[in-house]
Amino acid sequence: MVAFKGALIDLGGVVYVGTTPLAGAVEAIARLHKAKLPVRFLTNTTRTPFKTLQGQLKRMGLAVAAEELLTPALAARRIIEAEGLQPHFLIHPALHADFKGLAPGKQEAVVIGDAGAKFTYPALNAAFRALNRGATFLALANNRSFRDADGQLSLDAGPFVAALSFASGREPRVLGKPSPDFFEAGLKALGCRAEEAVMIGDDVEGDVAGAMAAGIAGVLVRTGKYETGAEASITPPPTFLAEDLAAAVDWTLSRT
Amino acid sequence: MVAFKGALIDLGGVVYVGTTPLAGAVEAIARLHKAKLPVRFLTNTTRTPFKTLQGQLKRMGLAVAAEELLTPALAARRIIEAEGLQPHFLIHPALHADFKGLAPGKQEAVVIGDAGAKFTYPALNAAFRALNRGATFLALANNRSFRDADGQLSLDAGPFVAALSFASGREPRVLGKPSPDFFEAGLKALGCRAEEAVMIGDDVEGDVAGAMAAGIAGVLVRTGKYETGAEASITPPPTFLAEDLAAAVDWTLSRT
Repeated sequence: MVAFKGALIDLGGVVYVGTTPLAGAVEAIARLHKAKLPVRFLTNTTRTPFKTLQGQLKRMGLAVAAEELLTPALAARRIIEAEGLQPHFLIHPALHADFKGLAPGKQEAVVIGDAGAKFTYPALNAAFRALNRGATFLALANNRSFRDADGQLSLDAGPFVAALSFASGREPRVLGKPSPDFFEAGLKALGCRAEEAVMIGDDVEGDVAGAMAAGIAGVLVRTGKYETGAEASITPPPTFLAEDLAAAVDWTLSRT
Repeated sequence: MVAFKGALIDLGGVVYVGTTPLAGAVEAIARLHKAKLPVRFLTNTTRTPFKTLQGQLKRMGLAVAAEELLTPALAARRIIEAEGLQPHFLIHPALHADFKGLAPGKQEAVVIGDAGAKFTYPALNAAFRALNRGATFLALANNRSFRDADGQLSLDAGPFVAALSFASGREPRVLGKPSPDFFEAGLKALGCRAEEAVMIGDDVEGDVAGAMAAGIAGVLVRTGKYETGAEASITPPPTFLAEDLAAAVDWTLSRT
């Protein structure tokens, strides 16, 4: 068995719920840092910009450095900068903060997130026409729906990604979990290979099965959105089932 | 070989182009009527209400009776009435005329067409929530795009049908060509079986291949959107390739 050289950790439901750190999470992260195991926190948020997320973590007393955070918007920004893209944005208004100060690009791109009320026919049609002209197609997420403020499910980014994909015949690069691209970006940031990394998450599909499909060990925690028996819903089953982040970190550090 | 007992005929590109009847079309339709062969005109229009279409046909001097016309909206209305549905409409504003005076229904339905600018997030989200409650899912069409007034392609109904389908995990009943349901409705109106009917159209996929998949003889005319060699693009090839509607009617009447 290969020793772990890095850890990928989901935030919501693993490190905190709402604005409260989960019991033992602060100490668990401190132990990872003390052991000098490289860590990246992978979150699928497509509504909270990086600076806001950093502020929230700080207020919760969580010692997470800026370079330890990876969001779909940050991953998109890196691709935009690396490939010299000129994006059309179909994203949540708050998220524009993550794309400030980009240099003008040479090649068009469509960057789609959960734009909510900004998903208008003219905006979607402009994105469709850009795709027809050959624009790069980046999706911050591909979720079907989310639990809205009124308690009911509402349309997430995925249906609009599906609409543009159907219309243009083009497939997007999806930047959130469980996209292999997103886990690859996490591995690259950790500086280790898939079999040397562990992913700790509460979402058996998006976090655990997604990571395992990319060759990363998958640890499912019984906090956040975990529901009893979830570990039996994926094949192969999670590499390890942990009570919480503290137990997941114990297991991880015992294998470094 | 079975004798034909009815004919299904596409309108745009077969009977007329724009507001002008094609050469020989008026006489060809008169011959069908004189031969007392039941005829239904199947059009995929999802922006022109029935009464407007009737007026356009009359002004062109085309003797098409009201009961001879079949549009996706009329097909939807028949389903709504037969099944006692209560529809949420996501359709072009002009098309509401086709759904006037419906009795209140007992079972929710989502009726989606090419709503254009009416495709807003709140409207799509309301339709998604209705589908989650079990609403019947009716799509007037499933086209990817159409040639817009500015000469460029714009998003048609299909991408929004795909969005709702992806979000809800539900498959719609599609009411336009090439949906088998639409050809079935045409056969029912003609009162004959598939092998006793012929479909005459200029769209090798939507009209001809669609009809043939439903067991109906498919005649491709070299007018309208016909492009040289189109007959070779489908397998099996069209049952007959005709110069225009007049030639298609000659062929049809020789087989009654």
